[in-house]
Amino acid sequence: MNPARPHREGKLNHLKTAIREIPDFPKKGILFYDITTLLKNPKAFSTILGELAFPYKDAGIEKVVAVEARGFIFGAPLALQLSAGFVPIRKPGKLPADVYESTYSLEYGNSTIAVHQDAIARGERVLLVDDLLATGGTIAAAVDLVKRLGGEICGLAFLVELTELKGRDKLKGYDILSLIQY
Amino acid sequence: MNPARPHREGKLNHLKTAIREIPDFPKKGILFYDITTLLKNPKAFSTILGELAFPYKDAGIEKVVAVEARGFIFGAPLALQLSAGFVPIRKPGKLPADVYESTYSLEYGNSTIAVHQDAIARGERVLLVDDLLATGGTIAAAVDLVKRLGGEICGLAFLVELTELKGRDKLKGYDILSLIQY
Repeated sequence: MNPARPHREGKLNHLKTAIREIPDFPKKGILFYDITTLLKNPKAFSTILGELAFPYKDAGIEKVVAVEARGFIFGAPLALQLSAGFVPIRKPGKLPADVYESTYSLEYGNSTIAVHQDAIARGERVLLVDDLLATGGTIAAAVDLVKRLGGEICGLAFLVELTELKGRDKLKGYDILSLIQY
Repeated sequence: MNPARPHREGKLNHLKTAIREIPDFPKKGILFYDITTLLKNPKAFSTILGELAFPYKDAGIEKVVAVEARGFIFGAPLALQLSAGFVPIRKPGKLPADVYESTYSLEYGNSTIAVHQDAIARGERVLLVDDLLATGGTIAAAVDLVKRLGGEICGLAFLVELTELKGRDKLKGYDILSLIQY
C-alpha cells in the first residue's frame, strides 16, 4: 500500500457500467465480471492503460510481468507504455526454455504456473499486472516466481479487485493498485 | 497482399538475433522460435509494435482481433495504438457470453476457438494479428469467426512467418503483413 495515493483505489469504478455481469459462470453461484465488453470500447481500454501506467511512470520499471491469458492484455501494453520489457508467465509446458514453476491451491485442486529462468535479471525492477485480484492465489504464485529470479517487485496492479475475497491478505508488504473495486 | 508495400515483408529480419531457437520443442524434429527473448527487450518490442501498427494507421481499424494466448501480447497494444477496440478469441469454455466457434485441423486431431457473438458489429473494420503464421490453420479459423460476425477484414498481421509452411495459401485475397520471415 502506498499512502501517497489511496485516492487511486477504485478510481475507475464508473467503468463498471462497461463490464458485463454474467451469473453462474463458470459454475452455479459465481457472478462473472466479463471485461470483454470493456476491452472492445477503445476509450475505456485506453483510459484503463493510462491509469495503470500513471503511478509507475517514474518508477524505473524494467520488466512488466503478467500471467496468461488475460493478464497479457494489460501487461503487454503496460510494458510498452513504461518502456519496459514484457515477461509472460505461462501454464506448464508452454515455455520452451528452462523454467521455474510455482504451484498454488484453488478451490478444488491445484494449479501451476511457470516462468523462464532468464526472464528477469537479479535486481531488476518489476511490475506485476493482472486483470483480476480475487483470492490472490495466482498473483502470490507469480510473486514467488519473480522473487526466485531475484526481481525487485515495485508494485502489483489490477484492473478489478473483488475486495470481499481479501486477496490483499496474501500480498502484504506490496504496493497494490486496483482500478475497479467490487 | 498489398503491392504498395512489398518492401515491408520481412522488414525486421534483423531481429532474428533476438529470437531464441530451441530444437525439439514441443516435440522432436520441431525447431521452436522463442519470442520471449525478444519481448523482454523493450526497444525490440517497441519497434515491432510500431511496424505492426504503421501500415494501418489511416485504415480506420475499429477492432483488433487476436487469438489467445500469445496473440494477446501483440493484439492488445496494437488496438491501443490504432485507437481500436480489442477482441479476444479464446479456447472453448473461456468466454462467458454467447459465442460462435470454429474448428480446424492440426497435425493430429482438431482444435476449436471461440468469439463472443457481440464482439464485432456488422461492417466494422477489423485487423487480425498473431505472433506466428505457420500452416495458417488458426488464423483461417479466426478469419471464419470474424466473417460470421460480419466484420470487414482489412488485414492480417504477424510478427513471424514460416514461409515454407505456405500459410498464405489458406488466406488468399487478404492483405498479409509479416515482419520476420524464416
